[in-house]
Amino acid sequence: MSTVTVYSTKNCPYCRMTKAFLDKQGVTYSSIDVGTDAVAAQKMIALSGQRGVPVITVDDEIIVGFDSQRLNELFGTHVSAETYDVIIVGAGPAGLTAGVYCARKLLKTLIVSDTIGGQALESWAIENYMGYRMITGEDLMKKFEEQIRTLDVRVELDRVNKITADESLFAVTTVSGTTLKTKSLILTQGKQPRKLGVQDEEKYLGRGLSICATCDGPLYKGKKVAVVGGGNSALQTAIGMSGIAASVSLIVRSTIKADPVYLKKLEGIPNITVHLHTCITAFEGDPFLQRITIKSEGQGDQGIDIDGVFTEIGWTPNTEILDSLVELNDRREIVVDVDGRTSRPGVFAAGDVTSVRSKQIIIAAGDGAKAALEAYEYLMKLG
Amino acid sequence: MSTVTVYSTKNCPYCRMTKAFLDKQGVTYSSIDVGTDAVAAQKMIALSGQRGVPVITVDDEIIVGFDSQRLNELFGTHVSAETYDVIIVGAGPAGLTAGVYCARKLLKTLIVSDTIGGQALESWAIENYMGYRMITGEDLMKKFEEQIRTLDVRVELDRVNKITADESLFAVTTVSGTTLKTKSLILTQGKQPRKLGVQDEEKYLGRGLSICATCDGPLYKGKKVAVVGGGNSALQTAIGMSGIAASVSLIVRSTIKADPVYLKKLEGIPNITVHLHTCITAFEGDPFLQRITIKSEGQGDQGIDIDGVFTEIGWTPNTEILDSLVELNDRREIVVDVDGRTSRPGVFAAGDVTSVRSKQIIIAAGDGAKAALEAYEYLMKLG
Repeated sequence: MSTVTVYSTKNCPYCRMTKAFLDKQGVTYSSIDVGTDAVAAQKMIALSGQRGVPVITVDDEIIVGFDSQRLNELFGTHVSAETYDVIIVGAGPAGLTAGVYCARKLLKTLIVSDTIGGQALESWAIENYMGYRMITGEDLMKKFEEQIRTLDVRVELDRVNKITADESLFAVTTVSGTTLKTKSLILTQGKQPRKLGVQDEEKYLGRGLSICATCDGPLYKGKKVAVVGGGNSALQTAIGMSGIAASVSLIVRSTIKADPVYLKKLEGIPNITVHLHTCITAFEGDPFLQRITIKSEGQGDQGIDIDGVFTEIGWTPNTEILDSLVELNDRREIVVDVDGRTSRPGVFAAGDVTSVRSKQIIIAAGDGAKAALEAYEYLMKLG
Repeated sequence: MSTVTVYSTKNCPYCRMTKAFLDKQGVTYSSIDVGTDAVAAQKMIALSGQRGVPVITVDDEIIVGFDSQRLNELFGTHVSAETYDVIIVGAGPAGLTAGVYCARKLLKTLIVSDTIGGQALESWAIENYMGYRMITGEDLMKKFEEQIRTLDVRVELDRVNKITADESLFAVTTVSGTTLKTKSLILTQGKQPRKLGVQDEEKYLGRGLSICATCDGPLYKGKKVAVVGGGNSALQTAIGMSGIAASVSLIVRSTIKADPVYLKKLEGIPNITVHLHTCITAFEGDPFLQRITIKSEGQGDQGIDIDGVFTEIGWTPNTEILDSLVELNDRREIVVDVDGRTSRPGVFAAGDVTSVRSKQIIIAAGDGAKAALEAYEYLMKLG
């Protein structure tokens, strides 16, 4: 039996999923909260060379992040070769809602996703999900998850890397090597964060550069941080981090394009400095980020001492796994009609991965329901 | 000063709206719960010739139902002649969500609707609104309403009877005689219950025939009732009424087309009798319904003693007020694209009034958000 340790923080959804995965596979492990235990935090950073959670040690092996492929290799069990009525790819607001609707129609349903909650997990505070005046993304996704756990839906924590269609069925292949067969598909795999395009960006990821402030924020208590972006997410992150870090530099490529409510809040916070028309041009520090260079329009380079950079600069749709399965638009989003149908019969889509312009939790949820009800109609006609 | 009395039941949303309207206008009134006070219930029925709530007496005048036109004539105050950025017609899940999104964009927003909550108010138990495992329509709509009350959105309880477009603005006219100007429109006025097509149907409405089981259900304690319809709503109503009434006859024109979860529940309830391939052909009783005639496929007429009939036979979209403002489909629903745009620039739509095939609260809410964000984009481009 392996000795397994999970270094985590309280509000990190990927930590929770790591533990959920291990629990499901019956693996015994120690869980250490590096948000409260500073000594353990230092140990984790020394072990992994990382300032980011989760870090999982399995005997002498160090796994950084919720690496579903590696964890499946070590602890996974294979899914049986049955044929599903519907496989839902992704388990964000769209996928989980689709799951609830499919289950209520008594369809044989499987959800495959490497996270439960998707991008919604990374929201600090949601004020525009109807039914809740204010809720964190983490808490809302827990509620969605609880709702799906009351129903007969199988959820497989794995990552899809290929989808193909033959005459009558679709085949879904995952990174852990499983191939699953289904009569219909609902694609809700969302999008992933865009890169800054700064040299050594990969090297600093987890060493001062973070794409999940909700996860890694607590590790930057009293430190100097920067948030990059000018949309709602960037402002939410800057506002959130201003209560944790000593100072926040908000670095905006052009101008702020966010809801006025956030702009108003931002103006009242003294430890946030806003740099408009500004880009990061370089990272410095070894092994951890210590300093960034910024360049503002019409001005020279400027160095700032910074311990952490959180990027909130947009997303690209996760459609590389689709090859030519369905029609994509010029942003490589799945083209859907008003009812969530794609260009291929039997394939439906919802949420941030689609051509729907507005990306919102309530929109993803609504469109997830549409996709499920259309999939049900499709299956009824198949007979 | 008039003497005003409102005869109501606890869970009747139209009663609550009547009181909200009177409260807003500063009108003093007595409120009597005819669900608990049997003597008052008899008095109300004698006064109004109605077994349905609310009944409002204003001195010697008797108003049946939440008649926003008459109440506006008696107690209304006129809205000022300002121009809005956006007027939202309807305040169901779609309209309220659109309102929240418009307010967060700081648009000058007015919602005009004769109810708050729309058709959702009439759901007994909602198990597929994500975030709540189980909630009544009334409670969920209260949460939506509370959310909008925290924001700067004006809600006018009135009924729109005409919408016209001139070169730059839209004019919205209400039954109480107000004309309102707006730069953009979000149409979310839903749909209304279909009629049975039985002789004297109008006469029995409120005298044994009800289109709102949530409202009038409590008045049929221990009585014999029928529910007409074979979809989710009909089954939910039959299941709900089986706990209140002595017996429930479920009358289905063809076969049941509902979620298997409801079908399963239904099968376990002994005081529900299901009549498939059956229609109501006549009502009897004076002044109250006492007996119906039903006809089943391949059989003769059959009389049943019944105190109340609840119809759940579908809906027609509320688009008669639109004239030729926007394109409608052959079901007279507003044709929308994937982002909630109609055929006319500046006019957006969401919810049950649109061509989106599935009619669900979560879908209406999601599409309400889309419509609001598209309206915002439209207004930004107007300058």
